[in-house]
Amino acid sequence: MNRIPFEEVRRHLESVLLRLGFDRGRAGLCARLFAETTCDGVYTHGIHRFLRFVAMVRNGAIDANAAPHRVAGFGALERWDGRSGPGNLNAYAAMDRAMALSRAHGLGCVALGNTNHWMRGGTYGWQAADAGLIGICWTNTMPNLPPWGGTEPCIGNNPLVIAVPRAKGAVVLDMAMSQFSYGALESYRKRGEMLPLDGGFDVEGKLTRDPGAIEASLRPLPIGFWKGSSLSIVLDTAAAMLSAGKATHQIEPESLRETAVSQVFVAIHPGAIGGSETIADEIVASLHRCAAAEPGKKVRYPGEQTLRTRKENRRLGLPVDEAVWAEILAS
Amino acid sequence: MNRIPFEEVRRHLESVLLRLGFDRGRAGLCARLFAETTCDGVYTHGIHRFLRFVAMVRNGAIDANAAPHRVAGFGALERWDGRSGPGNLNAYAAMDRAMALSRAHGLGCVALGNTNHWMRGGTYGWQAADAGLIGICWTNTMPNLPPWGGTEPCIGNNPLVIAVPRAKGAVVLDMAMSQFSYGALESYRKRGEMLPLDGGFDVEGKLTRDPGAIEASLRPLPIGFWKGSSLSIVLDTAAAMLSAGKATHQIEPESLRETAVSQVFVAIHPGAIGGSETIADEIVASLHRCAAAEPGKKVRYPGEQTLRTRKENRRLGLPVDEAVWAEILAS
Repeated sequence: MNRIPFEEVRRHLESVLLRLGFDRGRAGLCARLFAETTCDGVYTHGIHRFLRFVAMVRNGAIDANAAPHRVAGFGALERWDGRSGPGNLNAYAAMDRAMALSRAHGLGCVALGNTNHWMRGGTYGWQAADAGLIGICWTNTMPNLPPWGGTEPCIGNNPLVIAVPRAKGAVVLDMAMSQFSYGALESYRKRGEMLPLDGGFDVEGKLTRDPGAIEASLRPLPIGFWKGSSLSIVLDTAAAMLSAGKATHQIEPESLRETAVSQVFVAIHPGAIGGSETIADEIVASLHRCAAAEPGKKVRYPGEQTLRTRKENRRLGLPVDEAVWAEILAS
Repeated sequence: MNRIPFEEVRRHLESVLLRLGFDRGRAGLCARLFAETTCDGVYTHGIHRFLRFVAMVRNGAIDANAAPHRVAGFGALERWDGRSGPGNLNAYAAMDRAMALSRAHGLGCVALGNTNHWMRGGTYGWQAADAGLIGICWTNTMPNLPPWGGTEPCIGNNPLVIAVPRAKGAVVLDMAMSQFSYGALESYRKRGEMLPLDGGFDVEGKLTRDPGAIEASLRPLPIGFWKGSSLSIVLDTAAAMLSAGKATHQIEPESLRETAVSQVFVAIHPGAIGGSETIADEIVASLHRCAAAEPGKKVRYPGEQTLRTRKENRRLGLPVDEAVWAEILAS
């Protein structure tokens, strides 16, 4: 891994996007969101995902300069058409709009159809929390997970993000409904390691910690077994209904063609009814007091590690695979 | 188990509540919600929980006739004080208010502090869905689950409910953040059975399927390990912040004194922006087409089994433990 300064990474990504035809402001924001994702430690969806994003702009799945368009609205609830624009720019605009609605109405909701993979979902949670708002958002995906009781990937891993503002560090959940992503399975397999916990079924339908066996069966586990499977289904249903966009079963199950996904963005304005961040501080303190399973360690709140990683990567530079970086420079 | 007709159960519960001093309308609704919970197959939180509810009215933890009171509001976002009223009546009123707000603003949110256990959370999801609305609600609880990386019960199992309307049967998720409840662990142990999956740690910190070993360690598993732990924390933080109520770490960890919990109720009005239930029908159909793990079975959508159980229990009568029923009749 190379370590490359944040600003240098951002600038290089921006030039690639400009050469691809992105308008200047859009190239700048898109590059920043990719760099911030790596900076925050979500390496699978930052710089290392950038070339796949570029390929989807080139193959026409992503329309570089298509901006989302409002198609319906009633009070604090709106539906927008993502017009096949870049997923991270669309999601950022949708959360921004939900935030504006929440400032006017106490809360706001934007349903976004016909958009693309939002890359790191946590981005839009931090976006709301950094502005003092609670952010809740989710997306559907192509079918990549068998529902509980099923053997085929009929549901999505549909990430859910919930972020609560806190001056000393927002409390941010960003989780997909699969216990281990295919990326994680691949990493374990390449390192020759077993998973720390059962991660799916093998081809014979037995629970296993063997990452390769799960890649072969295409049967990773939903979190909480039947529970995460149900959560995935209900999130997909709400997203498709509100956005009038595609449901998971209608999305092309192919990595460079996974497009027209549906998303929901909700912002809630606690300050409008006197909500105080002290409550979040006290919860964090209570977790830090909780007896830890490993001596010398502390129980962490969701988002705590992100802040540490962010600081470290800002100081040392962003870790980037050398081959990937060479390819980006040549793009 | 006896089978007792729905209306007979409801009427008996109502008379007990009237004798306890509940106002007439409140006794009727409260009794109906308990009977419906059993009717829908959530036996732990229906009639079989009624005597514990009665004990909490008697010990003063629940104030029979305290109705929730609006303390702050901004547009579609409101905060209500539950004034230690009955949890199911308070929750029903809060969702009802969120629903009214959603009809005026597209969506609405009511945060409710200082309330009591809402019994079955799914009740308020069905309430919204039956009116053609998306209902999202969650509650915190007393500390009853160790966070990931911790050994003490510092977080709650904080149930989350998401319901999407559908004329042929709403899609309703109702899940706690523990993989198995203490009630479920007890049932398995009494039947002399192992859990079908790892359900927690034993006192030595090893994952186990032995229900008794988990009851002894007080270390049941959160769903999805670190993921459900994080979801529980973020839901608690949002609920306490919006309601200005207690967070899990401030709630008395004792079953007849678990009170002053915090809850959030969100209703979204898909019809206001032209949301169509056909999308939900198509998702249900796609799940029914998915290859099933067991031959002859079908993958189910969340809420599907509830409808079947509801119909059967309406026809055959509600299953009630004879001893419990005798005690209710004598109350």
